[in-house]
Amino acid sequence: MASDKYSEAGVNIDKGNQAVEKIREMVRRLGVNEIGKFSGFFPLEKKLENPVLVSSADGVGTKLKVAFMAGRHDTIGRDLVNHCVDDILVYGADPLFFLDYIATGKVEPDTISAIVSGMLEGCVDNEFVLLGGETAEMPGFYQDNEYDVAGFIVGLVDRGNILDGKNIRKGDLLLGLPSTGLHTNGYSLARYILFEQEGLSVDSPVPGAEGNVGDELLRVHRSYLKPVKPLIREGWIKGMAHITGGGFIENIPRILPDSLGARVERVWPVPPIFRFLVEKGGVSLEEQYRVFNMGIGMVLIIEPAFLSRVEASLKAAGEPFYLIGQVVPHEGGARIHIQ
Amino acid sequence: MASDKYSEAGVNIDKGNQAVEKIREMVRRLGVNEIGKFSGFFPLEKKLENPVLVSSADGVGTKLKVAFMAGRHDTIGRDLVNHCVDDILVYGADPLFFLDYIATGKVEPDTISAIVSGMLEGCVDNEFVLLGGETAEMPGFYQDNEYDVAGFIVGLVDRGNILDGKNIRKGDLLLGLPSTGLHTNGYSLARYILFEQEGLSVDSPVPGAEGNVGDELLRVHRSYLKPVKPLIREGWIKGMAHITGGGFIENIPRILPDSLGARVERVWPVPPIFRFLVEKGGVSLEEQYRVFNMGIGMVLIIEPAFLSRVEASLKAAGEPFYLIGQVVPHEGGARIHIQ
Repeated sequence: MASDKYSEAGVNIDKGNQAVEKIREMVRRLGVNEIGKFSGFFPLEKKLENPVLVSSADGVGTKLKVAFMAGRHDTIGRDLVNHCVDDILVYGADPLFFLDYIATGKVEPDTISAIVSGMLEGCVDNEFVLLGGETAEMPGFYQDNEYDVAGFIVGLVDRGNILDGKNIRKGDLLLGLPSTGLHTNGYSLARYILFEQEGLSVDSPVPGAEGNVGDELLRVHRSYLKPVKPLIREGWIKGMAHITGGGFIENIPRILPDSLGARVERVWPVPPIFRFLVEKGGVSLEEQYRVFNMGIGMVLIIEPAFLSRVEASLKAAGEPFYLIGQVVPHEGGARIHIQ
Repeated sequence: MASDKYSEAGVNIDKGNQAVEKIREMVRRLGVNEIGKFSGFFPLEKKLENPVLVSSADGVGTKLKVAFMAGRHDTIGRDLVNHCVDDILVYGADPLFFLDYIATGKVEPDTISAIVSGMLEGCVDNEFVLLGGETAEMPGFYQDNEYDVAGFIVGLVDRGNILDGKNIRKGDLLLGLPSTGLHTNGYSLARYILFEQEGLSVDSPVPGAEGNVGDELLRVHRSYLKPVKPLIREGWIKGMAHITGGGFIENIPRILPDSLGARVERVWPVPPIFRFLVEKGGVSLEEQYRVFNMGIGMVLIIEPAFLSRVEASLKAAGEPFYLIGQVVPHEGGARIHIQ
């Protein structure tokens, strides 16, 4: 079909369809849900007493710029899926399905299919479904070979099992689960320090780290679903905080009752990329814990009586963890004390 | 809280929080769901025999560029919500909730709150809930005062009531419901013709139209929920096509069984903005119906026996409509014949 006038204006519907075809192929290959009409369908087969849908929208932020610099487009999709999974996991919800939005100046089928293959892998790893999505070609919005992505997740929890933190008490413990790196936050500052201030490239070494700057910055945001789900099922967790934008400082208070705060002891090994960023950027302690996750991607709040059982379960799952702090009364001032 | 290093890198968390506060205020005022933690909650109170969630993701495309040119940011949110509502309405689904993603180079609280107020209005008009969203500040991605938006909708339908078009037969009728204008499609071509080729501005007149170029291009994408829902409830509709990107040519076949096509007669009054675009751009008939909706935003497929009842219901609702065509056998060649 000829669409001359339209492609003159910079939009190529046929190339868009080609990208959709590539995605369909992957979807078929991986055996997940068929996509491509107006909407996606998800039968709600699980019968819960008081089913509550839990939903979240997210992007990957300026981590994308690092992907552009490194020319790697297959990790971003997993970042997006895992970030979304963690955002609903904190309330005890199981993921049901995911949709994506990809916007780009010019559809490059290989790039789009690399992004989507990452999303599909993320969905398969977390055992849920990529239900659909939109790929928008928007000439004049994005620079050549650049794009933005957003993800949208829907999960399910029984109302009585929502982890809302209301039972958290003074003396409860904070367990930290390690991140793989920056996950999806702090990239504007990291890029500023590394690329603008220090003049490094994605190929530059990071002292003490396994990978170069590109590798370290592109490490995939972890999903904590597998190690954490059994703990939730057993009723051992009172609340969780996903350490994203706003760091410890803003995310831990989200789950604490108003009268409570937390003391965090820096007892875990801070990954080399963070040490490098803090040193080169002269980042203050306060800012480190507001902008970065500093090596802890998820915080579990448990009562001391369950500690040994939680530890045993995490050890059996091969999941490292650190006892990083305690819930304390909040009597004005900062809610979170980092020491 | 000081975040000097971070704002040096171009990200302003406090301004982001200010935008969230403005949004929260609107949410409270309008009495819709509270937002702002990791996710949003939606209790599934409606009991259906075989509940199926129907979900869709969408953007507004390059219509945004017109909003930027005109400095109007309060219509885009309604475009996005209504587009999403229509995308699930075609399957007979009722909207439950909506989430948004807004990405911008620099958060301007007034702009963000204008966008979100449009979304809230859209949700209120359609009687469903803005459950949450993400506003991402991404320096270096978007030009000053520019942004992108995506919307995600979740709706519900009982499996037995899904409008999947499988009962559509030769001889069934196509009813067209008027659009308000371009809705959210064809803007790259429209902008090319009007602004680049013709050198017009948003303030230029459009012959025969009420508004100027900006007004006509920014007319809000309609939601067809209110006039169409009663027809669906009565069981009078066999299938629907939302005329979005791909126009009649690609959207009508989405709902037709493979062995069928459709003949469309151009019997409705084509709005002045389309006539102007077609004339100035020398847009071929084929392309008109692949890129634009040409004045018809939703096509209902019904069997002739129900025509008088459907007509009476639409008339009672004050909803104009046009009998625009008929389902025909498809024996190779084009599925949709425009004549």
